[in-house]
Amino acid sequence: MAKVGFIGVGNMGAPMAINLVKAGHDVVAYDLMPELLKPVVEAGATAAASPKQAAEGAEFLVSMLPSGPIVESLYIHDEKLLDALSTETLVIDCSTIAPENAKNLATAAGERGISVVDAPVSGGVGGAVAGTLTFIVGGEQAAFERARPLLENMGKNVFHAGASGAGQMAKICNNMLLAVHMIGTAEALQLGVDNGLDPKVLSEIMLQSSGRNWSLEVYNPYPGVQDGVPASKDYSGGFQVALMNKDLGLALAAAGNSQSTAPMGHLARSLFLQHQRNGWAKKDFSSIQQWFNKES
Amino acid sequence: MAKVGFIGVGNMGAPMAINLVKAGHDVVAYDLMPELLKPVVEAGATAAASPKQAAEGAEFLVSMLPSGPIVESLYIHDEKLLDALSTETLVIDCSTIAPENAKNLATAAGERGISVVDAPVSGGVGGAVAGTLTFIVGGEQAAFERARPLLENMGKNVFHAGASGAGQMAKICNNMLLAVHMIGTAEALQLGVDNGLDPKVLSEIMLQSSGRNWSLEVYNPYPGVQDGVPASKDYSGGFQVALMNKDLGLALAAAGNSQSTAPMGHLARSLFLQHQRNGWAKKDFSSIQQWFNKES
Amino acid sequence: MAKVGFIGVGNMGAPMAINLVKAGHDVVAYDLMPELLKPVVEAGATAAASPKQAAEGAEFLVSMLPSGPIVESLYIHDEKLLDALSTETLVIDCSTIAPENAKNLATAAGERGISVVDAPVSGGVGGAVAGTLTFIVGGEQAAFERARPLLENMGKNVFHAGASGAGQMAKICNNMLLAVHMIGTAEALQLGVDNGLDPKVLSEIMLQSSGRNWSLEVYNPYPGVQDGVPASKDYSGGFQVALMNKDLGLALAAAGNSQSTAPMGHLARSLFLQHQRNGWAKKDFSSIQQWFNKES
Amino acid sequence: MAKVGFIGVGNMGAPMAINLVKAGHDVVAYDLMPELLKPVVEAGATAAASPKQAAEGAEFLVSMLPSGPIVESLYIHDEKLLDALSTETLVIDCSTIAPENAKNLATAAGERGISVVDAPVSGGVGGAVAGTLTFIVGGEQAAFERARPLLENMGKNVFHAGASGAGQMAKICNNMLLAVHMIGTAEALQLGVDNGLDPKVLSEIMLQSSGRNWSLEVYNPYPGVQDGVPASKDYSGGFQVALMNKDLGLALAAAGNSQSTAPMGHLARSLFLQHQRNGWAKKDFSSIQQWFNKES
Repeated sequence: MAKVGFIGVGNMGAPMAINLVKAGHDVVAYDLMPELLKPVVEAGATAAASPKQAAEGAEFLVSMLPSGPIVESLYIHDEKLLDALSTETLVIDCSTIAPENAKNLATAAGERGISVVDAPVSGGVGGAVAGTLTFIVGGEQAAFERARPLLENMGKNVFHAGASGAGQMAKICNNMLLAVHMIGTAEALQLGVDNGLDPKVLSEIMLQSSGRNWSLEVYNPYPGVQDGVPASKDYSGGFQVALMNKDLGLALAAAGNSQSTAPMGHLARSLFLQHQRNGWAKKDFSSIQQWFNKES
Repeated sequence: MAKVGFIGVGNMGAPMAINLVKAGHDVVAYDLMPELLKPVVEAGATAAASPKQAAEGAEFLVSMLPSGPIVESLYIHDEKLLDALSTETLVIDCSTIAPENAKNLATAAGERGISVVDAPVSGGVGGAVAGTLTFIVGGEQAAFERARPLLENMGKNVFHAGASGAGQMAKICNNMLLAVHMIGTAEALQLGVDNGLDPKVLSEIMLQSSGRNWSLEVYNPYPGVQDGVPASKDYSGGFQVALMNKDLGLALAAAGNSQSTAPMGHLARSLFLQHQRNGWAKKDFSSIQQWFNKES
Repeated sequence: MAKVGFIGVGNMGAPMAINLVKAGHDVVAYDLMPELLKPVVEAGATAAASPKQAAEGAEFLVSMLPSGPIVESLYIHDEKLLDALSTETLVIDCSTIAPENAKNLATAAGERGISVVDAPVSGGVGGAVAGTLTFIVGGEQAAFERARPLLENMGKNVFHAGASGAGQMAKICNNMLLAVHMIGTAEALQLGVDNGLDPKVLSEIMLQSSGRNWSLEVYNPYPGVQDGVPASKDYSGGFQVALMNKDLGLALAAAGNSQSTAPMGHLARSLFLQHQRNGWAKKDFSSIQQWFNKES
Repeated sequence: MAKVGFIGVGNMGAPMAINLVKAGHDVVAYDLMPELLKPVVEAGATAAASPKQAAEGAEFLVSMLPSGPIVESLYIHDEKLLDALSTETLVIDCSTIAPENAKNLATAAGERGISVVDAPVSGGVGGAVAGTLTFIVGGEQAAFERARPLLENMGKNVFHAGASGAGQMAKICNNMLLAVHMIGTAEALQLGVDNGLDPKVLSEIMLQSSGRNWSLEVYNPYPGVQDGVPASKDYSGGFQVALMNKDLGLALAAAGNSQSTAPMGHLARSLFLQHQRNGWAKKDFSSIQQWFNKES
């Protein structure tokens, strides 16, 4: 069992840290808002008074933070946490941030002899609690192998996408594609319904045909077609529109930098921005179905 | 075994008719271009000199024609074939046409006491030869049940989508969604590759994540990722760009009629039109990957 | 002064016919719905009991009908009006229809030695009443020259776009571009307002800069920026969303036939379809501004 | 006549500085690449060895830099130029940068009692040389009034868009709308040409109709329609595709921050990214016409 520092115990970070405790690790946790540490400490972690204290002597330092600038501020610019780390510590940043921020962190760490992997997650709060997250990891092979057992204490699938930043990149490619086929599914279902088809029958036919995709299979956006999905629970839970917008923003910023076209991604972005504007920020992203649904 | 009239024995119709012969049916075939009848007659069918002759005494009349106006011209307006049919004959129109044309046919037939199903196919020439087509059928339950065994002689999956026209409608919904996730997949792969990811690794990750879709699973558009798919054969074979454009045109005409939004479908339409314009009409539609690929 | 037959005296046709009466012409009018003839007869026209009667002995036959199939039905297929016309009669079809329908009419007329121009209008009911319509005309030079004085009795600008069908084509190109810059203007204004700009100031700046366009100049979509425009009258009057959708449908059908890409036109189409679906069919098309406006 | 510091004398900055010299100002110029100072010094300016030296005793400090991070680095973070400025100096930043960067600069300057206006330009190198630039200015009214005479030495139109950052914001709104109506114009012209219209005739008709916009009026993208425009000079000169992409990137980043939908802007972005990728980065942006033009 390892000594693990954990920085950032919000909605996602807390259950992840608790799963590490449950797996037998010695977890020292820090958060800017100390009250967030409560459930983690109750589960058996130790509270740290500063990021540096959380990182002291840690074999692994896990961070789960809201944005790339905050990650850079913590490790490099303001808190300068990298300067305090031992070269024995493996940094595992699970935040979803721009690949560029992840590369900056890896470069700055490398200059200090410290290894880093970027390991953004998918699976949401539900997956974090259940320990069934997916981790998409960027970094050197050896660092990936070292991180893997720890990640498996928090998740089910652990992928190695490539060098530093590749975890972030693969995640935003996946989520851009997810946005596209979710909207595509919603508009195809609506077109069918508008022309007299039963959404269940149409879903079943497309599932067994070339229209098949994850949105149809496990996340049907049309209310009443599938049990247990957000569409059948008033679009509560799931993956919030605001978070999809965050990921689409990262994807299109990357596309701009590499002059990648991404026309469907750009369109998806504008539709989810409008959907968020219309008041759906905290609802599941499959609620885009309702956008197509209005009756005059 | 049944007496079957078969009208239209082009690329698709000929192998379909031959599979009916092989299944033991007594097939009488007609085509405007008599030379197309040769392979069908060699396989054991009888050549008819007119549509009416093909239909005479038939238990089933199958048609496989290039467009809705041609279907209406044959059955209703010019050739007035419906007027010559017995009420015992079940019309099975396998052409891909507008749902409106299919409904017009069903209405005109119904006025004469004749049953019709619309039964457009997917699976291409390969599926027609192999007898593995998918049929998506619109029409009354009894007519569907009567048509099903015959369709199973030509295909593997037979779906009942709903009332007359519903087969056409469900097919174009499916193919619009297919166009969307194919482009979405291609642009996500390109975004990844432009940012240093290996397209195989990225495909593998997305396949096991929420980006999963039919294009990734069985039809990866990025050359060299998957064996045996059009992308690995210079985009030859498969489902031609020009045919995807035909189906998108039908889908968006239907969307216009029902005031369905279909923003992704509209964008897909414009991209496939440009792709066709650029010289890709006869290549497989997954070649849209090459559209994103150009280097300055 | 000429003898003029006039078929179709609805919202647009009636004031056009009345302007011909006012100009001194001898107008014989017909409509499927005889009650529509009242105001035209009161203004001095003669009522005809059939299209043929309206056309009898006419130097000009003007038609103003709702769709291409209806135009073809009247002149060619059902009513076969062309068969009854003298070769002395110049047909001026002012309906907005597909270029293909206009060409079919011109071809059928040409076979009978009859000249036709397609002369779709813009300017709406207001322009029809005021006699300030714009006519965009397709047909041979001589026919155009012959039609021009009559068109000038009903409008202010008369353009010759080219051969038969070119009037329709130029009109739908123009209206597609109009849809695009209206939406572009609305979204640019919204982006500015969302970021603290005053829509009047921003409009003024863009008007004097490279963003300038007709929508900004004479039809500002942001409420309160410009006096007298639909945006300042709750989007009443003007050019209805449903009519814009009709024209976009014609434009994109033409684009599909000629494999023209029109990506902005396709996107505009999907947005106006959604806008119509949301209940704005009868409001002015600049109300698309409200689509961008919603607050969560 | 005033003492003016000028930082950044590249393609745009150099002719702007020279116009200030010509207007009689005492200009002290600095650039990271000293060789760029030559033409400015030849015109009568003094070379400075550092930004601080350029700013010393200046009544106005003009900067023309390539990006927001560089502007912030110069004034705030690295060079900390603000700390060296007198409160008598008015900072006029003519760089095109994110409104957020402009606001950061204004805030940091305000804390030190220094006034700043953001004054991005349009008009390109040609306008900079000819002194006909347009300046769109953000900042307080008094600062704007103080800057105006100096700006009029370099340009023709000077607009006050609002508070700090509003100059940047108004510029990117304008340029997003420009991108949209340029593409809209190009695709409308192509649709017409594909259907037999003469691009000159169609342009003339749309110019006098509701399709009218700046692209049609003074910048027609179709080769051979208008003299002297980039389209008639192989798309050389003008406003480069790469610069349009820079502005669209800023516009959509702002849209993401304010949850503004901008669907046309997003589509324009993806098309110009593809166009740049295809090798057109340094050509005028009206060359997007060629994107639609390809023949199979």
